[in-house]
Amino acid sequence: SPGSVWPHPFSHVSTAQTFPVAVETFVFTYAPKSFKCDLLAEAFKRYEMIIINKHIQTLVTFRQLNTLTVTSLQVNLMAACEEYPSLDMDESYTLDVNSMAQASLSAKSVWGVLRGLESFSQILWESDSGQIVANKTNIIDKPRYAHRGILLDTSRHYQPLDVLLENIDGMAYNKINVFHWHIVDDQSFPYVSTVYPNLSQMGAFNPLTHIYTPEDVAAVIEYARLRGIRVVPEFDTPGHTTSMGKGQPGLLTECYTGCSPNGNYGPINPTVNTSYTFIKNLFTEVKSSFKDAYIHLGGDEVSFACWQSNPNITKWMKDNNITGDYSKLESVYIQQVLDISAAIGYSYIVWQEVVDNGVKVKADTVVEVWINNHPDNELAKVTGMGYRALLAAPWYLDYISTGEDWKRYYTYEPSNFNGTAEQKALLIGGEACLWGEYVDGSNVTPRLWPRASAVAERLWSQETVNDVDAATPRLHQHRCRMVQRGIPAEPLHPGYCKHEWRN
Amino acid sequence: SPGSVWPHPFSHVSTAQTFPVAVETFVFTYAPKSFKCDLLAEAFKRYEMIIINKHIQTLVTFRQLNTLTVTSLQVNLMAACEEYPSLDMDESYTLDVNSMAQASLSAKSVWGVLRGLESFSQILWESDSGQIVANKTNIIDKPRYAHRGILLDTSRHYQPLDVLLENIDGMAYNKINVFHWHIVDDQSFPYVSTVYPNLSQMGAFNPLTHIYTPEDVAAVIEYARLRGIRVVPEFDTPGHTTSMGKGQPGLLTECYTGCSPNGNYGPINPTVNTSYTFIKNLFTEVKSSFKDAYIHLGGDEVSFACWQSNPNITKWMKDNNITGDYSKLESVYIQQVLDISAAIGYSYIVWQEVVDNGVKVKADTVVEVWINNHPDNELAKVTGMGYRALLAAPWYLDYISTGEDWKRYYTYEPSNFNGTAEQKALLIGGEACLWGEYVDGSNVTPRLWPRASAVAERLWSQETVNDVDAATPRLHQHRCRMVQRGIPAEPLHPGYCKHEWRN
Repeated sequence: SPGSVWPHPFSHVSTAQTFPVAVETFVFTYAPKSFKCDLLAEAFKRYEMIIINKHIQTLVTFRQLNTLTVTSLQVNLMAACEEYPSLDMDESYTLDVNSMAQASLSAKSVWGVLRGLESFSQILWESDSGQIVANKTNIIDKPRYAHRGILLDTSRHYQPLDVLLENIDGMAYNKINVFHWHIVDDQSFPYVSTVYPNLSQMGAFNPLTHIYTPEDVAAVIEYARLRGIRVVPEFDTPGHTTSMGKGQPGLLTECYTGCSPNGNYGPINPTVNTSYTFIKNLFTEVKSSFKDAYIHLGGDEVSFACWQSNPNITKWMKDNNITGDYSKLESVYIQQVLDISAAIGYSYIVWQEVVDNGVKVKADTVVEVWINNHPDNELAKVTGMGYRALLAAPWYLDYISTGEDWKRYYTYEPSNFNGTAEQKALLIGGEACLWGEYVDGSNVTPRLWPRASAVAERLWSQETVNDVDAATPRLHQHRCRMVQRGIPAEPLHPGYCKHEWRN
Repeated sequence: SPGSVWPHPFSHVSTAQTFPVAVETFVFTYAPKSFKCDLLAEAFKRYEMIIINKHIQTLVTFRQLNTLTVTSLQVNLMAACEEYPSLDMDESYTLDVNSMAQASLSAKSVWGVLRGLESFSQILWESDSGQIVANKTNIIDKPRYAHRGILLDTSRHYQPLDVLLENIDGMAYNKINVFHWHIVDDQSFPYVSTVYPNLSQMGAFNPLTHIYTPEDVAAVIEYARLRGIRVVPEFDTPGHTTSMGKGQPGLLTECYTGCSPNGNYGPINPTVNTSYTFIKNLFTEVKSSFKDAYIHLGGDEVSFACWQSNPNITKWMKDNNITGDYSKLESVYIQQVLDISAAIGYSYIVWQEVVDNGVKVKADTVVEVWINNHPDNELAKVTGMGYRALLAAPWYLDYISTGEDWKRYYTYEPSNFNGTAEQKALLIGGEACLWGEYVDGSNVTPRLWPRASAVAERLWSQETVNDVDAATPRLHQHRCRMVQRGIPAEPLHPGYCKHEWRN
């Protein structure tokens, strides 16, 4: 049925009765006792545009006089505005279109209002005659998981600013609330650091055109903030740092062949103090730029070969009585980075290897499970150790195959692991990861959407909302809605949208 | 090295010596004795734009005074202009930039000039300082195969006109010379027929917005003609006709459950004369619209179940002494359609099942091999029967997988089947097929390019040009060139283009 909401609300009751919507003159208003908020003023403008655009693209419009008509949405924000979204934000809301065609939305926080505005825009639909209508509706909604993220990788390919913003729009349309920005990696270092400008100068693909300046970063964060989306940057160390090493001589371990350096570099050198000074200075800057309470520290896929080849590393390990124990060496590094991060006030997320390798982490660490070999067992282990967990493993969207792979993403139930109720509660959400090896501005958006929408519903909606057949027409409708709003979401199956991309 | 040409020419000799190119004032001229041609005037305009655009996007430009400079390309067309490209067209050319920085292009036909203009535009490259330069160069070039096609499917999804034209540009940049337009199929009938307007009225996804009018079809053909690209339409029968049946009652076989029709329809009813009258009228119109000497008649995947269920079909088969032999029934149909096509002056291409099922076809039929189960054996069989063949089986680009699948397309050697020299000569080319189940305007172009470029080189260049490692940087360069020209070709591997899409 038209006017379905994606992801599916906690409760959505509607009747067949519809009211026309006065799209040309539609306004959002505040309820008398509502708190008011600059952020909502911006949101009202955006959703007015979305509602008006729906109208503009229709072929025919009319509205009977003297008919009950939805002319406005009255918003009741029941608490003072917050500035930045956070892991603890309240995203619940209630939305009502009553039998008098009065539409109202109320929420305990500005973030809930944002989610409700999105749902309101989705319940509007275009009748066969081209009239925009809304059903009599009551929605009570709240997310199942607090952290619903999308990882985009701007290192394997540079993703232009417009492309990032477009996909943040896509996140808002899917009630995704975290942009996990895998901003740097081996291949390039586009982040422009003020304290270490050589990092992008030497490490970006091109230091003039393939970078994110402080203004760019601020623009991304502000764009996301206005949509209730957190931006969590990842500065992965000690591996995945080749590009970081180019602008910071001495940071990386020199690899040796026999008795002399061979010109290659391995992970960050964990045996010298300069490495930690660098990390501290960089992360201090990052924290002031990115605002969110969390940083992703990476910690995945650390190769030991280069450390093993380097006689200075070998000597240091002997001096410190850890000869041969490279996991221990990795732990020495990670432990210090965790301490630095904590000292500057950061909470942190790490990839699963950090705990797999036995590093002692703070109790409030979030561990992201990515290795797709029984991630359920890993979730059981991580939560059994008392850590909070994020699930990414089933949702690596860079892996592609012919056909409807969204169904696989959709039907992976994250809570389906062995553990107590306390353990289940430690799973705070998940992420769809679109690594950047094979995507850039030419193809990243249609590859992400609507495949990531399947993950969005899994993480927002209740566990019982898991029927692929029921989801298929709703997701098709949602895909067409994204297309109409300017997101080139790819098709699910043979068929068409009323308003096609580029038609 | 920069300024490489894709697909690789028959012979390409260049030296390290470069000349600056006067891009702002660059002109194409005719050699004194050259034939002249409206089609080339259009081509000159296009390539001037391409060359100027390369310049506009650069950051810095200078040209030393008193330096030998490429200021023009002198074109020598050695025969009168032809109006439409054909299977027999001559695409050979020679291109020279001599030690006096004089650039010249000569060809025996206008089609060769077009291919040479494309190569000329590709040998220009941007130096580190932003200067556009050309190496001293001599290219002698000709295609290996005469038919180098791309199939796009506008039935599973409607592909907007702009999207078709964009991809015809892509074809020109890759010296593809056939657009195989799989215009209709089960899912929708977007072709607007003048003699049977109900076909699109009832069979299109939307008869106002998801159609190709006669003007649209003419625009596609003209756009392709100007680029030396044939447009070969496919009207697949007797299967794949569900949408065709909607606007032509009585055309399709009624399927029965027990003794009564069950509301479903099967292939075209081969037992009634009205079917053949319809085909004759439709194809007569198609021939006058599409200009090319060839039509693709389809003939693939004919299911017998519906015919088997229908008592009228059963009776007819009994009356005609072919009881139980549904392959024979299919042959009866195909034979008549071939005769109709021949009678209206069409040459034709069919999918391999037509000959696999023993239908007697004209000696000059082209058989397209698509089933990816030892297509080499099928090529041996088809050419052994004396028919010309096209290879599509290894190049179904709708099948996707993670990573660099272009390498698989690139290394499939079409001539590698058992057969005599005469048989090898009957293989006239191949096609990359991007079936439309999962692509529309949102994603079709990046999914097609540069994957289809691998097929383009396989079909244009000599058999010995088959080294993936040598091709990789050239294809990356070519992909970036397409991006710069406005084709959102997707990335091959981690890395970047100097001028990124949407940056």
